[in-house]
Amino acid sequence: MKVSVIGASGYTGGELFRLLCNHREVEIVGAYGKTTIGKDLSEVHPSLQDIVDLTIEEPKYREVGESSDLVFTATSHGVAMKFVPDLLDEDARVIDISADYRLDDVRVYEEYYQKHESPGLEAVYGLSEIYRSEIEKADLVANPGCYPTAAILSLAPLFSEELIDLEHIVIDSKSGTSGAGAKPSQKLHHPTCAENLRAYNVTAHRHSPEIKQEVEKLAGGEATIHFTPHLIPITRGILNTSHVFPQDTVDEDKLIELYENFYDDEPFVRVLERLPQTNAVRGSNFCDVGLEVSENSGRIVAISAIDNLVKGASGQAIQNMNIMFGFDERMGLEEIALRP
Amino acid sequence: MKVSVIGASGYTGGELFRLLCNHREVEIVGAYGKTTIGKDLSEVHPSLQDIVDLTIEEPKYREVGESSDLVFTATSHGVAMKFVPDLLDEDARVIDISADYRLDDVRVYEEYYQKHESPGLEAVYGLSEIYRSEIEKADLVANPGCYPTAAILSLAPLFSEELIDLEHIVIDSKSGTSGAGAKPSQKLHHPTCAENLRAYNVTAHRHSPEIKQEVEKLAGGEATIHFTPHLIPITRGILNTSHVFPQDTVDEDKLIELYENFYDDEPFVRVLERLPQTNAVRGSNFCDVGLEVSENSGRIVAISAIDNLVKGASGQAIQNMNIMFGFDERMGLEEIALRP
Amino acid sequence: MKVSVIGASGYTGGELFRLLCNHREVEIVGAYGKTTIGKDLSEVHPSLQDIVDLTIEEPKYREVGESSDLVFTATSHGVAMKFVPDLLDEDARVIDISADYRLDDVRVYEEYYQKHESPGLEAVYGLSEIYRSEIEKADLVANPGCYPTAAILSLAPLFSEELIDLEHIVIDSKSGTSGAGAKPSQKLHHPTCAENLRAYNVTAHRHSPEIKQEVEKLAGGEATIHFTPHLIPITRGILNTSHVFPQDTVDEDKLIELYENFYDDEPFVRVLERLPQTNAVRGSNFCDVGLEVSENSGRIVAISAIDNLVKGASGQAIQNMNIMFGFDERMGLEEIALRP
Amino acid sequence: MKVSVIGASGYTGGELFRLLCNHREVEIVGAYGKTTIGKDLSEVHPSLQDIVDLTIEEPKYREVGESSDLVFTATSHGVAMKFVPDLLDEDARVIDISADYRLDDVRVYEEYYQKHESPGLEAVYGLSEIYRSEIEKADLVANPGCYPTAAILSLAPLFSEELIDLEHIVIDSKSGTSGAGAKPSQKLHHPTCAENLRAYNVTAHRHSPEIKQEVEKLAGGEATIHFTPHLIPITRGILNTSHVFPQDTVDEDKLIELYENFYDDEPFVRVLERLPQTNAVRGSNFCDVGLEVSENSGRIVAISAIDNLVKGASGQAIQNMNIMFGFDERMGLEEIALRP
Repeated sequence: MKVSVIGASGYTGGELFRLLCNHREVEIVGAYGKTTIGKDLSEVHPSLQDIVDLTIEEPKYREVGESSDLVFTATSHGVAMKFVPDLLDEDARVIDISADYRLDDVRVYEEYYQKHESPGLEAVYGLSEIYRSEIEKADLVANPGCYPTAAILSLAPLFSEELIDLEHIVIDSKSGTSGAGAKPSQKLHHPTCAENLRAYNVTAHRHSPEIKQEVEKLAGGEATIHFTPHLIPITRGILNTSHVFPQDTVDEDKLIELYENFYDDEPFVRVLERLPQTNAVRGSNFCDVGLEVSENSGRIVAISAIDNLVKGASGQAIQNMNIMFGFDERMGLEEIALRP
Repeated sequence: MKVSVIGASGYTGGELFRLLCNHREVEIVGAYGKTTIGKDLSEVHPSLQDIVDLTIEEPKYREVGESSDLVFTATSHGVAMKFVPDLLDEDARVIDISADYRLDDVRVYEEYYQKHESPGLEAVYGLSEIYRSEIEKADLVANPGCYPTAAILSLAPLFSEELIDLEHIVIDSKSGTSGAGAKPSQKLHHPTCAENLRAYNVTAHRHSPEIKQEVEKLAGGEATIHFTPHLIPITRGILNTSHVFPQDTVDEDKLIELYENFYDDEPFVRVLERLPQTNAVRGSNFCDVGLEVSENSGRIVAISAIDNLVKGASGQAIQNMNIMFGFDERMGLEEIALRP
Repeated sequence: MKVSVIGASGYTGGELFRLLCNHREVEIVGAYGKTTIGKDLSEVHPSLQDIVDLTIEEPKYREVGESSDLVFTATSHGVAMKFVPDLLDEDARVIDISADYRLDDVRVYEEYYQKHESPGLEAVYGLSEIYRSEIEKADLVANPGCYPTAAILSLAPLFSEELIDLEHIVIDSKSGTSGAGAKPSQKLHHPTCAENLRAYNVTAHRHSPEIKQEVEKLAGGEATIHFTPHLIPITRGILNTSHVFPQDTVDEDKLIELYENFYDDEPFVRVLERLPQTNAVRGSNFCDVGLEVSENSGRIVAISAIDNLVKGASGQAIQNMNIMFGFDERMGLEEIALRP
Repeated sequence: MKVSVIGASGYTGGELFRLLCNHREVEIVGAYGKTTIGKDLSEVHPSLQDIVDLTIEEPKYREVGESSDLVFTATSHGVAMKFVPDLLDEDARVIDISADYRLDDVRVYEEYYQKHESPGLEAVYGLSEIYRSEIEKADLVANPGCYPTAAILSLAPLFSEELIDLEHIVIDSKSGTSGAGAKPSQKLHHPTCAENLRAYNVTAHRHSPEIKQEVEKLAGGEATIHFTPHLIPITRGILNTSHVFPQDTVDEDKLIELYENFYDDEPFVRVLERLPQTNAVRGSNFCDVGLEVSENSGRIVAISAIDNLVKGASGQAIQNMNIMFGFDERMGLEEIALRP
């Protein structure tokens, strides 16, 4: 099948090429960008030297749509919304890795992001484990944010049983710096960012309403999400620590069993008997989940670890592609984590 | 005044020498250790080359006590308890940087640590900002843990006004690796620890009862502390994120004013109008505090940053020494953070 | 084909599993260790959870040899030498990733390492690009050291033309910390190793005689190798900077052409028009090479970058396996570097 | 004495404030910048919060010169040259931390940098250990580059005795990222810079002619400097590895004695019996030096470690200030390295 990537020079774009070039069913037919037009892909992503031989071009969207079975849009939010309708018009299917189609309610999108230029398109939220059957048939998949992927997968089994207090869901997340993208800034300048810890968007991060939307669907009721992200000086990885409070006393072993059953057939969620670490998933599409219940207070601490660029972005996008096109869900995603 | 250090080769020991050798009123008369006896101090701490010219000796505790006005015990827990009574007997005052005298209730100590060999000694909890007048007169100061220092200072002003729900105090802390001490281990082996994120002692860390004890004193009632620490691959620094819930609606500006007033005369607590970062305090004795109130949920996020080896250990110990001996509280602690 | 790994719990062992489990022709039949006997492989290498389901066993060498077509020995030096003869006796072919069979002259081995217990075995030095035809037929391959791999590949084309002064070959190498192995030590303790730079074994590293031996074979004459390694706080990667001096004036473009021709058919050596960086090869089996000639002094600076655990160890071992068993040389080594 | 800083918002500017604010003889009267005019100093350097209370102003150079006994110019090269004559005219003494007055031959400056706008000013090269008596009387001190400081101090004693071959001086240097300045760029973007190693300006770095100029003065003859710098993902520190070749056989112990004698009275050069490490000097003004002689080849490896922002920039500038104004050379530079 023919696949194009719009947004080829960012980190999620680079990651798509890294993973797609070993995918048996995929032919990459186009790499499109804005600021890097005319450059060889390997100039922007030196790891692709002698592997992917493509030049970054300016996209003519209708032509891209026409020549591709699937287009990945790996742009910033506010960009994909401008041309996704054109791609769909030409019968390409689209997986949007930006935030543009993740929020069901366009008012929420516009509150947290900006004016939406193509509201009302029918998109499926691409959390593979939860929406597999809808993704199969979707023409437009809204690939989840990195934090929401880690957060929701850490908690999903709990909602199936109405186990927890929905008013006090505290999600304290820690992300490596690649999550902030490839554009240089003071915040991500190595000397001031390395050997430093900071929180950011402490009460109003854009991924909050996305988590809330999905948690409420799973829980079947209103939930308050208390989400705070932190920037950690590692290049890749999210460690998500969810602190939640059971309605009644729960047993740790039973909870682990609940998780194991919930994720039993999932190829990319591993329920661990130990605590997750990011370097056990780095470079891979796995989401590792582990949990503990406090003997004193009853608090449940559910921890998940993902690679923000893989399961948190491009890897999950390829997982969704596999679902959409009927391939083995693991195809192209066989890599084991790079550890150490 | 004459000062000795027992536990000279660990990180907190090294940090005491780094800071004390520029303290105008202090003469360091002895450096004592166990596994490094006979070594020059600069062999263990190469940064002290040509600065502190001492050989690490085996301590004879009564002699140490006799020859010192003040002894810092910078050992692991379970060690200081064996000889602190001897030091006090010889009329030395003692600042214990280990955990041995922090918990008022010896049963709690024994539940979280081990059998106590000198229970019942009268120790003052050395959180300088809270117990200054008691510290002044103390013969034995129990220097606080690194996490408790950051956690309590992030929250103390709130308790003065009974503002928050004491059942849902979630404290999610992130520490650099020097907090785990100088002894090599798989967990702290560079290749597996760098570029990795992990939580540990997720529901039952030893600093939990210490935080609970002090929060309850400040709040004047029972409190449930939901504390989870994380290991972050930076060498120094704790970033403490406290998620708490107000009883009634609170105003962010008023809260900041409350904090500013509470810490108004404090030489080492800075209430910021922005969010704290660890590299703005690295190497210094400051605790930076900042906070935000969620417009949607009302949650208060109070963030503090300290250097775990300075305000979280040896720096606060010296601050306590200054209080005990009537020196300017800033003496020897004038260093600005090393940033970048 | 049936493959066993002796030394399953170290970093090179873990790396073999990471790469072999996606190799189409390989069935892993045994994982053997010493200090981790009885543990699940995924307990030692959490990245292998749900992927490789093996328990680490104590090796009975003759049985291992009998049941395997190929055995990788991923032990420390001084260990493999004890049992490789047994493995060969049972008609297993062996790739030894330790240093035990790299040096042709056992006296040199014993000067730099220790008494050799199985001298005289016929081993082929497994630098794939140089000894491909010998490797094909070998029963015992001595897999090269990480530094020698990077150093020799940075210089090999120069020797084919007798271009440089063999008395002043300065090789200044920088390695990430995984090169020092999985065993915790003060030198590799995160707090003292991160944010630190140091040289070690400055004039007498064990890889010096190995580089010398191979350079002299390539150059056809005596050479003096001035090699100094450095420990850099990244987890993976070697950057090798070779400073050499031409006999006569050389032209940079001609040199690059010489390198391109020399490595023209090599699947894993990329001659770059820019300078190599380690993160463009991290996790992959590539050796990237680039060079510059000083306009003022004529000095040639030839720089190479490898992942010390892949092309510098387990990846090259698998490349050698592919050569020995007639597989496509790229098989199992298709992974692109993880960047960022 | 009254001191001003032009270039207040860069890393060397920030470092001047960090060190000067604890200097007993200094009153900081002005902080000047270009892109940060109107900001509080603590907004740019959050570590200075509550310590230095200054607003960054636009400099009127003659007024700055008039109101200051000493002006530090901590700008990029090509900037200070525009206004240093004005400062001197107003009888301020000047320490220029940029490269503008380091090279004696303006043609060399213009080859490596740009057109010089104030050539011919009489500047003293501010390598404190070598030019102390000239610095005392200087009105304009050209503070050395970070690499030249480390390189020259690693080699200086050798030249006093004509011990080495001046044609093969190989200087392989490794620097932390703060050496590249505070301006964000792709090269220093955390995700691509962390966990990466690279060389840069491999044969033609701007510090090459500076090292050559000073080595030739010390050696009293022509020398060829083979200098290559590398970017290492730590925030601070230079480790300089000089590979040089003796004319005749030399004895390691005698060489160390030579170094010890040469630096005997120096307050900031420590000749070690072990190899230097950057974290033993981080944050301090020390230059640690160590060396080894190869038993096989005779090569001398002389290694030095400095903090690039202290002894390599602002610390040495203050050392020079102390020399110029007759203060104790250690004043304001008492800090011990931050280790770990």
